[in-house]
Amino acid sequence: MKVRMEVNVRSFIEHNDLRGLKALLEDQDAATIVEMIDELEPEEKVIVFRLLPKELAAHVFSELDPKEQMKLLSLFKEERVKEIINSMDPDDRTDLFDELPANVVKKLLEYLSPQERALAITLMNYPENSAGRIMTPEYVDLKEDMTAAEALQHVRETGKDKETIYVLFVIDRTRKLVGSLELKDLIFAEQNQKVSEIMNSNPLYVHTTDDQETVARFMADHDLLAVPVTDSETRLVGVITIDDVVDVLEEEATEDIQRMASLGATYTSYLHTGWHRFFKGRVLWLLVLFIMEAFSAVVILHYIDLLQRFVALAAFIPIMIGIGGNVATQSSALVVRAISVGEMDLKDWWKAILKEVIVGGLIGVTMGLLLVAISHLVIPVWYLSLSIGVALFFAVLVSAVLGGALPFLAKLLKIDPAYMSGPVVTTAVDVLGILIFFSVIGRLV
Amino acid sequence: MKVRMEVNVRSFIEHNDLRGLKALLEDQDAATIVEMIDELEPEEKVIVFRLLPKELAAHVFSELDPKEQMKLLSLFKEERVKEIINSMDPDDRTDLFDELPANVVKKLLEYLSPQERALAITLMNYPENSAGRIMTPEYVDLKEDMTAAEALQHVRETGKDKETIYVLFVIDRTRKLVGSLELKDLIFAEQNQKVSEIMNSNPLYVHTTDDQETVARFMADHDLLAVPVTDSETRLVGVITIDDVVDVLEEEATEDIQRMASLGATYTSYLHTGWHRFFKGRVLWLLVLFIMEAFSAVVILHYIDLLQRFVALAAFIPIMIGIGGNVATQSSALVVRAISVGEMDLKDWWKAILKEVIVGGLIGVTMGLLLVAISHLVIPVWYLSLSIGVALFFAVLVSAVLGGALPFLAKLLKIDPAYMSGPVVTTAVDVLGILIFFSVIGRLV
Repeated sequence: MKVRMEVNVRSFIEHNDLRGLKALLEDQDAATIVEMIDELEPEEKVIVFRLLPKELAAHVFSELDPKEQMKLLSLFKEERVKEIINSMDPDDRTDLFDELPANVVKKLLEYLSPQERALAITLMNYPENSAGRIMTPEYVDLKEDMTAAEALQHVRETGKDKETIYVLFVIDRTRKLVGSLELKDLIFAEQNQKVSEIMNSNPLYVHTTDDQETVARFMADHDLLAVPVTDSETRLVGVITIDDVVDVLEEEATEDIQRMASLGATYTSYLHTGWHRFFKGRVLWLLVLFIMEAFSAVVILHYIDLLQRFVALAAFIPIMIGIGGNVATQSSALVVRAISVGEMDLKDWWKAILKEVIVGGLIGVTMGLLLVAISHLVIPVWYLSLSIGVALFFAVLVSAVLGGALPFLAKLLKIDPAYMSGPVVTTAVDVLGILIFFSVIGRLV
Repeated sequence: MKVRMEVNVRSFIEHNDLRGLKALLEDQDAATIVEMIDELEPEEKVIVFRLLPKELAAHVFSELDPKEQMKLLSLFKEERVKEIINSMDPDDRTDLFDELPANVVKKLLEYLSPQERALAITLMNYPENSAGRIMTPEYVDLKEDMTAAEALQHVRETGKDKETIYVLFVIDRTRKLVGSLELKDLIFAEQNQKVSEIMNSNPLYVHTTDDQETVARFMADHDLLAVPVTDSETRLVGVITIDDVVDVLEEEATEDIQRMASLGATYTSYLHTGWHRFFKGRVLWLLVLFIMEAFSAVVILHYIDLLQRFVALAAFIPIMIGIGGNVATQSSALVVRAISVGEMDLKDWWKAILKEVIVGGLIGVTMGLLLVAISHLVIPVWYLSLSIGVALFFAVLVSAVLGGALPFLAKLLKIDPAYMSGPVVTTAVDVLGILIFFSVIGRLV
């Protein structure tokens, strides 16, 4: 990896060498500047922003945390705010507005030029997490009867501020999408060839209302640098580029992992999230799980006489529910991820169940036999240690199957399958494990 | 999303309409063809491959599962195998060779042209999971003193088979990387401007030995379409493009999720992995966890007299360890992900601990008070129900801190922090929870 020079931006500011700092910053890309100013106080960041050309300032601003963006907006002079939000890419601006309180958005909208304002409002009107929200209306469009040379000239003339010029879209007179081509097709074509001969006349596209994650995975599968976005009448309205897709995929993975851990909300940043937000999100789920878990106490109290007779049985409760929980976590993680990346769909539920029955059964036999041997050391009564082993076998089998089944059940109920993993299945399986344990032993003893 | 026509490839084959099928397939991209032939038997796939032009055949082949690739290689005629592996992109070929047994690779290497063979061997010699393994040596290089027009002409002449022409690299006479530029810079430049004036003379780059995940995140952060790869003397040796990076990020997320669930191995596909592989990977981890969990039995047996006196205490064991496990899962998932996406590093350990102490403490107080109330209904002895609540408070606090600390400990020991989540922390916290429960109650009673 390129070794970065460790630039101390703060010392430039302290020595008031703003000209030197400016020269240094202008050569960097936005992400590098974000790294360089990471440790600065907001007031110092404002100084840095004053030194940046407005396009670059807008890019750097787009890369910051929503919380920081809000803070900076309150510190910038009005003129600077206007410049930055007018220079931002429309998709980044939608992202920002999504995070801001409505009254701030209203104020910022007033700062936009009429044209940009209309654009911003259109984009914000698309449903949350839809393709419309991450697209930008800044693309290059071509006509079918242009020659390659004309098309390239058109790119030169109109492409400068566009999100990408590497993927180009061909539209007809009604703005309907009729084809797509890559810039390289134009470069390698005979210069008098028609666009209609070069283009792919069966272009891949997505709708404004499609889900972002689906779009992201679609683009990743087809190795697309950009995908056209159309309205319900296949009129071209925008483009989504690969850099946005990378962000979406990363966010979705984070969301999945956090849902699998029952965190109650999605936190885009660990360090920048306050303890009260974590507390609120986490404690709510924990209370639900607490209530679920309380049923295991009810079961144990129900079998209190049995336990009184063989109090050493209590020693096996953690093993019983621990192993069950671990197996269920394994199964659900596999199934949730396979559903999430699109490898399995609702119709594949039986394949997962079948696999979990086989794998869960084998694991159950292995663990069961092991526990028979170990428990016999503690309670040297064969029928008791055998019962404990049999109970573990069933607990493991049920855990594996439930871990595989619950994500599909969630999918059926249109809930994100990721919720059906980690603590949720572990807790469900705890209660079932206790129930199996005592009812098997109660029956066999 | 574009509605795909549901093409029944099999019916084309059954009706022996191979010409029709060929015409249909030639218009599709590789990913679409993979979808279309997904349900076919291997023997039918061989027929489809015969119809594809060799470049497209190589692309489709690259997109298949390693297991399928191996099967097809055994079914293809020798001539077809030669064509396909000679036409594959070098990076995809490295991917394939990584998965094949050594004797098959040896045979396939013989099929390659001398030039491609030398290339393949060079790439395979880079360490596993390094940038060298996913790069391709097929890039366009420019010289500093070319004009924009000359450079564009050079791209036209040499760019056809290259992995990308949208990012171009400038090298000196010793092949040292001196700059980079995007194709759009050439397009928008004055045609007689020198490359040296247009290029970014401080280009971002990575080394052949850099870790793939680090490279992927680096490219994502800087919104790069392609990044140059250099050897230790900054000589340009290859390029990594964004489509490979998307795959790496997806694989890393899958690996993280599976490690967090203690699955014992990384499974790239749920449906295509046999039960014996799942069994082997899962049962090994479960045995380790079994041994850890067994300590909780030891603790309980140690306190068997106390339990004999108040047998209803057993009813609280699942709640005690369940809640602790859930809290630890939450904390570790947050910290593991934050480390994984590069938000936190080893030096930030104290920030995580501090946050977990605060959040864990608050959750502990909430849950503890709740349990005092509930347990008082079961065991109406104030000092007992108070002890139970105090025990839960400590169990939750310890779980939160341990869940936040273990991923950092793993990082310190150069183990992937993802292992320190889910079942591993849950089990550790189970044992501690039991220990806290009985020692608090044993002391207060």
